[in-house]
Amino acid sequence: MTIDDADGTGGTRPGYRDTAQVDMPMAPPRPSAPLPVRTRGGETSREVPPVPTPRPVVEGPIPLPPAESVPLSTVCTVERHLDEILGSVPQVDPIELAVLDAQGLLCAEEVVSQRALPAFDQAALDGYAVRSEDVAGARMSAPVSLAVVGESVAGTGVFHTSIGPGLAFRVTAGAMLPAGADVVVPAVWTDQGTVQVEVLAGPPAGGYVRRAGDDVAPGDPAVQVGTPIGPAQISLLAAVGRERVLVRPRPRIAVLCAGPELVDVGTSPAPGQVVDVNSYALAAAARDAGAEAYRSGILPSDRRRLTEVLESQLLRSDLVLIAGTMSPGGFDMVQEVLAELGQMQFRQVTMHPGPVQGFGRLGRDQVPVLCVPGEPVAALVAFEVFVRPAIRLMLGKRQLFRRTVQAIAGQPLASPLGYRQYLHGTVMRHPDGGYVVEPVGDGTDALLARMARANCLIVIDEDVTDVAAGGLVTVMPLLLGG
Amino acid sequence: MTIDDADGTGGTRPGYRDTAQVDMPMAPPRPSAPLPVRTRGGETSREVPPVPTPRPVVEGPIPLPPAESVPLSTVCTVERHLDEILGSVPQVDPIELAVLDAQGLLCAEEVVSQRALPAFDQAALDGYAVRSEDVAGARMSAPVSLAVVGESVAGTGVFHTSIGPGLAFRVTAGAMLPAGADVVVPAVWTDQGTVQVEVLAGPPAGGYVRRAGDDVAPGDPAVQVGTPIGPAQISLLAAVGRERVLVRPRPRIAVLCAGPELVDVGTSPAPGQVVDVNSYALAAAARDAGAEAYRSGILPSDRRRLTEVLESQLLRSDLVLIAGTMSPGGFDMVQEVLAELGQMQFRQVTMHPGPVQGFGRLGRDQVPVLCVPGEPVAALVAFEVFVRPAIRLMLGKRQLFRRTVQAIAGQPLASPLGYRQYLHGTVMRHPDGGYVVEPVGDGTDALLARMARANCLIVIDEDVTDVAAGGLVTVMPLLLGG
Repeated sequence: MTIDDADGTGGTRPGYRDTAQVDMPMAPPRPSAPLPVRTRGGETSREVPPVPTPRPVVEGPIPLPPAESVPLSTVCTVERHLDEILGSVPQVDPIELAVLDAQGLLCAEEVVSQRALPAFDQAALDGYAVRSEDVAGARMSAPVSLAVVGESVAGTGVFHTSIGPGLAFRVTAGAMLPAGADVVVPAVWTDQGTVQVEVLAGPPAGGYVRRAGDDVAPGDPAVQVGTPIGPAQISLLAAVGRERVLVRPRPRIAVLCAGPELVDVGTSPAPGQVVDVNSYALAAAARDAGAEAYRSGILPSDRRRLTEVLESQLLRSDLVLIAGTMSPGGFDMVQEVLAELGQMQFRQVTMHPGPVQGFGRLGRDQVPVLCVPGEPVAALVAFEVFVRPAIRLMLGKRQLFRRTVQAIAGQPLASPLGYRQYLHGTVMRHPDGGYVVEPVGDGTDALLARMARANCLIVIDEDVTDVAAGGLVTVMPLLLGG
Repeated sequence: MTIDDADGTGGTRPGYRDTAQVDMPMAPPRPSAPLPVRTRGGETSREVPPVPTPRPVVEGPIPLPPAESVPLSTVCTVERHLDEILGSVPQVDPIELAVLDAQGLLCAEEVVSQRALPAFDQAALDGYAVRSEDVAGARMSAPVSLAVVGESVAGTGVFHTSIGPGLAFRVTAGAMLPAGADVVVPAVWTDQGTVQVEVLAGPPAGGYVRRAGDDVAPGDPAVQVGTPIGPAQISLLAAVGRERVLVRPRPRIAVLCAGPELVDVGTSPAPGQVVDVNSYALAAAARDAGAEAYRSGILPSDRRRLTEVLESQLLRSDLVLIAGTMSPGGFDMVQEVLAELGQMQFRQVTMHPGPVQGFGRLGRDQVPVLCVPGEPVAALVAFEVFVRPAIRLMLGKRQLFRRTVQAIAGQPLASPLGYRQYLHGTVMRHPDGGYVVEPVGDGTDALLARMARANCLIVIDEDVTDVAAGGLVTVMPLLLGG
């Protein structure tokens, strides 16, 4: 697999998933043993689950709620929810941008050069343009003497000029060669004479000459569809005379949050109120993933205003991202309004944290809308798992997922059976090679201050409930911009 | 070594260099054997060097120019030139930015929380706030029945409310707990009654409760000096009520190019003229490295205008970057004007491509000015080696250099003795582990189209002249934004 440009990831669209080797079966897993749980105090209990598991999963010592209370269709695996999102995310139409603004984006056209690069035979360095046969026998002990009949400086043409046997033309790096010359003798291999020059050694024919079209011939493809545009591509685009280029644009993403408890950061929260952090954190994460993110803040609590805001964002966005605590089949006002705008589905996804995830395509343009949990740590985990791959797909990237590594767990880890657990952690290189990972905090609640110390997500698969200290786990380093 | 945030690099300021294990001695190495060379046609010749090596190095079959013609002080190693740059680059004063604009930058203040996070004891999920002692014995076979005496919804206060024995309070995730409650029973562990609730299992004390201050206590440091600000830090900053934060700013870099042969991209080059690609490519590279880059284009050929442009850029930039073909002790007009503005030194650096590099601190504010070669491939190599580490140092990053890996050379590589050679290449993972690298093109002239296909630089140390196919070489993957 190629180490890819803008990536540092190892996942490509079809087949590969962030961690799983195979797709999970659709039927919810049925635990055959009590769920192992690490509780706040650190003791391990096999009596209670760490999260309210979706009802059909609950068994054994955990009370089994009425099976019909949550329809089976609202429970699904990480893969299935992700598949549905990636399968529905639309392509954004290519746009033409100035080459410098195209940086980091994928080329959406076949750029064919109309020119030869270099445009003319030129000296690769300062020296003397000569005929190779004249200097072939030059030695320190037997220098060849040539008459200097002219000078060619970079930036000037030397048309209708040629040299014959026994003649030399003084040239600077990048200067056009006179006709007849097929080699440049570096100045340091000569006595640097101005009227007559003593050549002490001769390069082979073609030496230190950049031939017209050596780099790019007219009609050659310069930059191809799907190539990420970095400094080297910008260099080449400029060289073939392109000031603008067609690219896959950054998707415009509106970031909103919902919750009666939320107040703006500038406000002092009253008792029971909480500052909106998700619209900031998710906008930052969306930018880091390559989107043009617009932080639209807290959704209004007035129903009419709420509808207006959502409709307006659907008109001007390629994707709408909403963070809020919602529930499958819930009757929250935001959920009701979303349902009026199109087909929106909320599901229990078998992951921890934050099982409730929503997805739909709403409005006239069927704009994808993703809902992630309102709890800030769960919101950023859901962003990593679902939103970042969707943004990368919209950007046209082949590598949708972050590269993962296997690391040695520095301490025992527990995970609820049937759930894919994402724990924030700190991964370090081991002096003997490989990686070691520790969860931040006690590995249960990843709170904000703890999350800010993490540099990775530890991913524990659905069928694993315990990882012993020294066992291997999958780790997804959270490199910014990666 | 920690896998660091925004990095993917392995170099830190003191001690570590991009590839060398030890600093190179200052005296130019003296070859004891003829220089091995791969020429354009692919034949290997031991007669001529691939570049005009600086004079004191040239020996044996290569004519030795007069030793005094290039003073020894103008020849130096990559390390020495880099050290001088990194030792002279000034710190940019911290600035206060809105938290979202601070993304990707380093925090320049100790952010101490004035608040507790969470601000109040709250439910971690939907359920019933109760006294743990009341539900400790609850079993499916022996449910505990409690009277539901109230409801607490996220976003509302429940001051002056408390519960006593046998009572329960319905709560939503994030809702404030009434006094007396020390545990939340998940709704799914109950019959979800509204007047009376049957509890089928009880979590241990503290279960599913987020305690005030658990995450951050008032007076706790939230984000520390030198922390890279990413989505998680933005989340935490917003949570502690910060709308703005003091950061190390992006250095403002003016990118200029010099050369009588240069014309603007929009122009059709006349015979002998070449399109300016460096101001585009270097501006893109500077942005990718984290700078605020301003492409100022081609320097004017009128001396007075040239002085004005340079003076004006020195006033408004933290660093000025100029690409152009210059020579140590040269009398180019740009060099003359630079010399009038301060101490500017041009040197033969023992590297290939592009040995001539310049550095100085000019103008009233002693702004660092870096000159890199005018040949576009050499310009981008010099950017990687000298300018990118300088930008990262100005950003305050600890990791100045790209991470390097060892890779198996897929074909033989040659390098001039005494020069550190940088070849563009393509590095790929080997199916059996490790990496394999191939130079782009024939490994001699890395032209623009070839460079655009590369994803790495192959670095061959000064004392190595030949790498056999299958030998190990140092490779610097050129990940964008990394």
